[in-house]
Amino acid sequence: MTASMIKPHSLKPHAHIGIVGASSPVDPADLENAKSGLESKGYTVTLGESTTKAYGYLAATDETRAADINRMFGDDNIDAIFCMRGGYGSMRILDRLDYDLARQHPKPLLGFSDVTALHIAYGKLSGLVTYHGPMPVGVFKSGGLAPIEQDSFDRALKRSEPMGIIPSAYPLSTIREGTAEGTLVGGNLSLIVGLLGTPYELDTAGRVLLLEDVGEKSYAVDRMLTQLRLAGKLDDCAGIVLGDFTDCGESMRGCNLPLPQIFADILLPCGKPILGGYSIGHCDINVVLPLGVRARLDASARTLTILENAVED
Amino acid sequence: MTASMIKPHSLKPHAHIGIVGASSPVDPADLENAKSGLESKGYTVTLGESTTKAYGYLAATDETRAADINRMFGDDNIDAIFCMRGGYGSMRILDRLDYDLARQHPKPLLGFSDVTALHIAYGKLSGLVTYHGPMPVGVFKSGGLAPIEQDSFDRALKRSEPMGIIPSAYPLSTIREGTAEGTLVGGNLSLIVGLLGTPYELDTAGRVLLLEDVGEKSYAVDRMLTQLRLAGKLDDCAGIVLGDFTDCGESMRGCNLPLPQIFADILLPCGKPILGGYSIGHCDINVVLPLGVRARLDASARTLTILENAVED
Repeated sequence: MTASMIKPHSLKPHAHIGIVGASSPVDPADLENAKSGLESKGYTVTLGESTTKAYGYLAATDETRAADINRMFGDDNIDAIFCMRGGYGSMRILDRLDYDLARQHPKPLLGFSDVTALHIAYGKLSGLVTYHGPMPVGVFKSGGLAPIEQDSFDRALKRSEPMGIIPSAYPLSTIREGTAEGTLVGGNLSLIVGLLGTPYELDTAGRVLLLEDVGEKSYAVDRMLTQLRLAGKLDDCAGIVLGDFTDCGESMRGCNLPLPQIFADILLPCGKPILGGYSIGHCDINVVLPLGVRARLDASARTLTILENAVED
Repeated sequence: MTASMIKPHSLKPHAHIGIVGASSPVDPADLENAKSGLESKGYTVTLGESTTKAYGYLAATDETRAADINRMFGDDNIDAIFCMRGGYGSMRILDRLDYDLARQHPKPLLGFSDVTALHIAYGKLSGLVTYHGPMPVGVFKSGGLAPIEQDSFDRALKRSEPMGIIPSAYPLSTIREGTAEGTLVGGNLSLIVGLLGTPYELDTAGRVLLLEDVGEKSYAVDRMLTQLRLAGKLDDCAGIVLGDFTDCGESMRGCNLPLPQIFADILLPCGKPILGGYSIGHCDINVVLPLGVRARLDASARTLTILENAVED
């Protein structure tokens, strides 16, 4: 994967950012607020058609969302594509996206949560490095990026030098000692699992696997990790970085296993280095990490290092 | 599949039933009530060790649950294995079950919901016909089987003649016209999807696919059906029977698509006959259906016919 991965050009000061609705809809006022926020930083912003045509819990119909993303990739006036928010819906359009087009017109694609489906698909089928991090609507609703988020954003998207250690805003824990080096992949557990058995299934072999989720009951986290295990994805990977499992862990009719016990039951037997508590996901601080570049996980020293640059000049 | 599927012997009047906890725990009083209920019908009942050793939301540890099921299959004094209830947990033990042993000692395995994982695994790896239907704890808590459930139970498990049309307790709807004939497979959507990408993945090619679920939000039903679609399972199948989607359909922060719209969006384009509203799953009436035998779905005439006997004499 890494040898042939395509790194987009860095985000320039006056770049033209295209905003798309790949997943769920947003309040129009929040969208305008995000647009103004980006413009106040010097960017030119184009809102895709998919940002304002809500269809149930989808930002627009599958046809519109897919066409918008394809159009943004194909348009050389657009320098980067930011997904406006997560929710649900990226999976529905995976077979409508033009992966050749994205390979021919590489540009940064930013998002997390439901956007994990796009990260996996463009990583696999376009060979594109993409960016796991906060999205405009959420960012500007909460008053902008925190300094540690801004720093990771700048290092991931603006500078063509090896990113180095990306600090976590929260204390990290060694869940299992050891070090691992490999391409960083992953994101939202529900979406990673949601692509198993499909042509977009994530390959974890020799890779550092990032996992986070939100609002899932304990047994559902257990089920998803069990599916990853049975699919061989845990045995395959080089190591695991656990992000935040925000609001996860609710019991089943009063019967529960705490998340650390679930991690111990399912993840520990795989014998890989595991780092816990990394500040990515639905937590207040969500640092930007590039997916598809070499990383080094040191679960003993509790560091995650991005060994490469994540953009070209 | 069908050619080599093994049908267990029929359930005799004084059969010895082994009860196992493959999934989540139950209240001991409810378990005793189920045992007494079966005994009052003339059966001998053995409660497996897995029925009383709760571990969080699991009926017992993985080791105990798996060993219990293996022991029940291997013990020729046990004529049938009934799972006490669903919940969650069957997936965790799939790689601890002895499929050769089950093939060598075939006997009826009964359950639904979380037990779908066992149906799929024993169907695939032991070539065993199994039985999708109500489980003892729930049945005796609610006062016994309804007449239509009892009739399907008797036809599935006690009589070695083709079962014929299995009526639904609820009105059926034609979601897409047409007829299909194939081996009946499936059960709980979450579990079917939970095995995609694993060695236990359900093969739907040329088969009639049964789907039901409980307590899932609209977008989660959408996500699971989308995963089935992307995995080719809908294109592969011969036809679809939708059971009850009990308490499914909750919105995402007020944004929603009604379930019929989700079915139309995702299932209709596959072009297969689809029958909706069949009384299987977490609804009040849950008829017994054998999995792994030939069935004929007539979505236009709104009938599901089991073309074979489901047990041998």
